[in-house]
Amino acid sequence: MKFANVIGTVVLTKTHDRLPEGSMRLVQPTDTSGKKKGIAIVAYDLLGSSPGEKVIIAQGSSCRQGPQLNTSPVDAIIAGIVDTIEQEGKILYQKKEV
Amino acid sequence: MKFANVIGTVVLTKTHDRLPEGSMRLVQPTDTSGKKKGIAIVAYDLLGSSPGEKVIIAQGSSCRQGPQLNTSPVDAIIAGIVDTIEQEGKILYQKKEV
Amino acid sequence: MKFANVIGTVVLTKTHDRLPEGSMRLVQPTDTSGKKKGIAIVAYDLLGSSPGEKVIIAQGSSCRQGPQLNTSPVDAIIAGIVDTIEQEGKILYQKKEV
Amino acid sequence: MKFANVIGTVVLTKTHDRLPEGSMRLVQPTDTSGKKKGIAIVAYDLLGSSPGEKVIIAQGSSCRQGPQLNTSPVDAIIAGIVDTIEQEGKILYQKKEV
Amino acid sequence: MKFANVIGTVVLTKTHDRLPEGSMRLVQPTDTSGKKKGIAIVAYDLLGSSPGEKVIIAQGSSCRQGPQLNTSPVDAIIAGIVDTIEQEGKILYQKKEV
Repeated sequence: MKFANVIGTVVLTKTHDRLPEGSMRLVQPTDTSGKKKGIAIVAYDLLGSSPGEKVIIAQGSSCRQGPQLNTSPVDAIIAGIVDTIEQEGKILYQKKEV
Repeated sequence: MKFANVIGTVVLTKTHDRLPEGSMRLVQPTDTSGKKKGIAIVAYDLLGSSPGEKVIIAQGSSCRQGPQLNTSPVDAIIAGIVDTIEQEGKILYQKKEV
Repeated sequence: MKFANVIGTVVLTKTHDRLPEGSMRLVQPTDTSGKKKGIAIVAYDLLGSSPGEKVIIAQGSSCRQGPQLNTSPVDAIIAGIVDTIEQEGKILYQKKEV
Repeated sequence: MKFANVIGTVVLTKTHDRLPEGSMRLVQPTDTSGKKKGIAIVAYDLLGSSPGEKVIIAQGSSCRQGPQLNTSPVDAIIAGIVDTIEQEGKILYQKKEV
Repeated sequence: MKFANVIGTVVLTKTHDRLPEGSMRLVQPTDTSGKKKGIAIVAYDLLGSSPGEKVIIAQGSSCRQGPQLNTSPVDAIIAGIVDTIEQEGKILYQKKEV
């Protein structure tokens, strides 16, 4: 899974009939330090993430696990919201408490 | 899912016998600002998109969901037509009304 | 699906026991103008394409649709032979009649 | 499968309901000499790897084999811990004994 | 399928319980002329290939076809050993007889 920052929202007019209504998030893949890597993509969000949160995204057939999306043409989802990234004893990222 | 602009149409002479007749669109992947990213590819269009529209494309096995394409050798489809892309409260893209 | 030019043939000595005999084509991925993009790969050809033809290739699990290849370790096939590529009213490519 | 070094751990707050609890490792893909290649990603760890170990990672649907992850939105796992990499009679890497 | 040269062997200590024992080959992807392209990866070898042989590798779910690997976390296999690569009537590669 890749790291990404949730940066916005995408609204669709016409969609594939297997694409359930729900939040389509604009996510920017990043490295561990938060630096942008590649272009922003659209990920289906089952977790209720908010812009500004760091998440991990899963891509490919792994996105369609579970009853909501298993016959859906979704190739990227938000699989988790990141709390902490730790590397060699150092905290690289810590989610701020709200 | 990636952003792409619908820029044309592709006609095939001979095709795989599991490839249903239908619109094969020429789509140019882009970033959120509409800048070209990578080469144009061919995506199966179940949505009746038109050249000039901004869409999201799904790739891989996620393309074969639903009865029309589930045994078809299609690795890219148009999964939705974009209405709005919003980033940090700013509208990056808004589909023009016709 | 990506555009590619059929440029040759590959013969194998020893193969995976689920790989059916048949034509393994050497194909060079291209952009819409025919310019090379990336390295030449090997695609299974169910369509009887000939060197010099422009095709679309499908990759990943989408290759294994249909009875001939559905349990076969094939990750790229020729999914169609291109007749015409049209972009914004202009013909970018037109297959020559033989 | 690609080579990677285990360099840290990732903790998630909210996760997809099909993602089993367990160790999410921060892994840095490398070449055979250990040089970084691409960005660090998150891989599910069923093997109890430790930071500092060289592993091979599997990506895509191949990650979901076995009962723990087969309906899970995981697109990268640690598939093995490397003992030795040998190239043309030379040992490129040998795991240190503890 | 991509071309690769078999250049070595990888031994694992601890492995996923669905990974059958067998030869894990170090393979270097190449173009048709044998020039290195990208980093060396690990491919499962069902064919008994030897270092020095040119092979084609299949990646993704296509690797898990057949009874030995169908529930295995393998994302790259050696799908065939190359005898000849022919491009526009010219032999680019011919396996040497032993």
